[in-house]
Amino acid sequence: MTRYLLERPHTLISLAFFADRYESAKSSISEDLGILRRTFMIRGIGVLETLPGAGGGVIFTPGISKKEATEFVGNTSKRLVEPNRILPGGYLYLTDLLADPELLRTVGRMIATQYSQSSIDVVMTVATKGIPIAQSVANFLNIPFVIVRRDSKITEGSTISVNYASGSSDRVEKMELSKRSLDEGSRVLVVDDFMKGGGTINGLRSLISEFNAIFVGATVFAENINMHSQFSDAEITSIFKVTKIDTQNKILNVEPGNYLANTDFSYFE
Amino acid sequence: MTRYLLERPHTLISLAFFADRYESAKSSISEDLGILRRTFMIRGIGVLETLPGAGGGVIFTPGISKKEATEFVGNTSKRLVEPNRILPGGYLYLTDLLADPELLRTVGRMIATQYSQSSIDVVMTVATKGIPIAQSVANFLNIPFVIVRRDSKITEGSTISVNYASGSSDRVEKMELSKRSLDEGSRVLVVDDFMKGGGTINGLRSLISEFNAIFVGATVFAENINMHSQFSDAEITSIFKVTKIDTQNKILNVEPGNYLANTDFSYFE
Repeated sequence: MTRYLLERPHTLISLAFFADRYESAKSSISEDLGILRRTFMIRGIGVLETLPGAGGGVIFTPGISKKEATEFVGNTSKRLVEPNRILPGGYLYLTDLLADPELLRTVGRMIATQYSQSSIDVVMTVATKGIPIAQSVANFLNIPFVIVRRDSKITEGSTISVNYASGSSDRVEKMELSKRSLDEGSRVLVVDDFMKGGGTINGLRSLISEFNAIFVGATVFAENINMHSQFSDAEITSIFKVTKIDTQNKILNVEPGNYLANTDFSYFE
Repeated sequence: MTRYLLERPHTLISLAFFADRYESAKSSISEDLGILRRTFMIRGIGVLETLPGAGGGVIFTPGISKKEATEFVGNTSKRLVEPNRILPGGYLYLTDLLADPELLRTVGRMIATQYSQSSIDVVMTVATKGIPIAQSVANFLNIPFVIVRRDSKITEGSTISVNYASGSSDRVEKMELSKRSLDEGSRVLVVDDFMKGGGTINGLRSLISEFNAIFVGATVFAENINMHSQFSDAEITSIFKVTKIDTQNKILNVEPGNYLANTDFSYFE
């Protein structure tokens, strides 16, 4: 039952279904769910909510407590400030972190917590390095994710594209998304690995409006705050912010971003 | 305990750790693990193995039973043969399927089953559409994954690259991987979404040998068998094979690939 619920977040499951599946009385299912509920809460896994009545059942909403999220931000900051992460052009080497299944699960759970009450239909990212984060968030919200591409690939079918200014270099680039990938009116959450200037996020936003869909918000793993972001604090959330990156002298400063301030953890405490 | 084990596959956890974490006697932990073991087996989640002695403990190996895998292949075949999936050039539109968290979990568990006894160190794929599969497999094997890129990105640091013949068009292309991403001697499992001719997989294989690492095998979600694959059946596994794809007349044939034959399910039955 634990696994069944963990694999189907944000899905209403009736007690009758469990009673049938495990050949038990509804009352003992109900008791077991009570134990699970307390365990999930103590361990910070998420909230198990019971909806009464004929159309009722149980819904699992994965989430993270403020305490665990704060610890994660503190511990991961230490891994981020290693000077050999500095790459030319104000970028950070993050490939090793974004390939770590445990880190990805935590980041996914954190972003899912932030948007757990926002009824998101789809998670969007741009290829390549945002994909693992998008997949992890999509997993916890139990919704699909779409990948916007910078290069045209024949295997996508027909696409809609927009031009955008790549913030760092004032180049105009193109990004596109397969026409079938996004329905009109969808509520879209944008995630990415690193934000520098915000040109990419802006491009994704205009692409979303080309599809007549709704941009709900954007959360990035890390942002470089020296790049004159064109967004307000409420529009873009970052888990980490790079406050100083000096390629020549190998000096790197990383601080917690506005994620902890922008997220309402009250449902998960 | 269920969640703790599910999130840490292929990891030895001592009974003392659980006893301490849940403030219980080792004997009752042991009893609970017995119940979990039977449940995991009945539900086809995987195998929970207890290693006796002082250095012992419990290891969870996620896997799928032959029955469940066969059902998945049957049901998904039906979704694959929709004629509007046909794209120019002998490709299939798979984007919707490869964005479905539940399908990705099953595919990941299937490929993890195939290689569960092969001591893989890292899962490798090439950007972009293989990434969700790689991430899911890596999750179940609890190892990192690396993404090989076709375009050079400054944010990767220094890279090693190889040229390869893109099977479909006889073009020579280039793929590269960040130097820090792969250690010498690593045992590498290659996964991808679609194989057409096998040029990409061949390229990945030479890249792996450039890193002095070991190519253990490759598994793809689907392959187009009309493209004169240069591999033997044992080297490349496909879950589905496209036996006919006729763009003009909108005719599409999809059959089960050699996955079921190439996989030893005995550990999970």
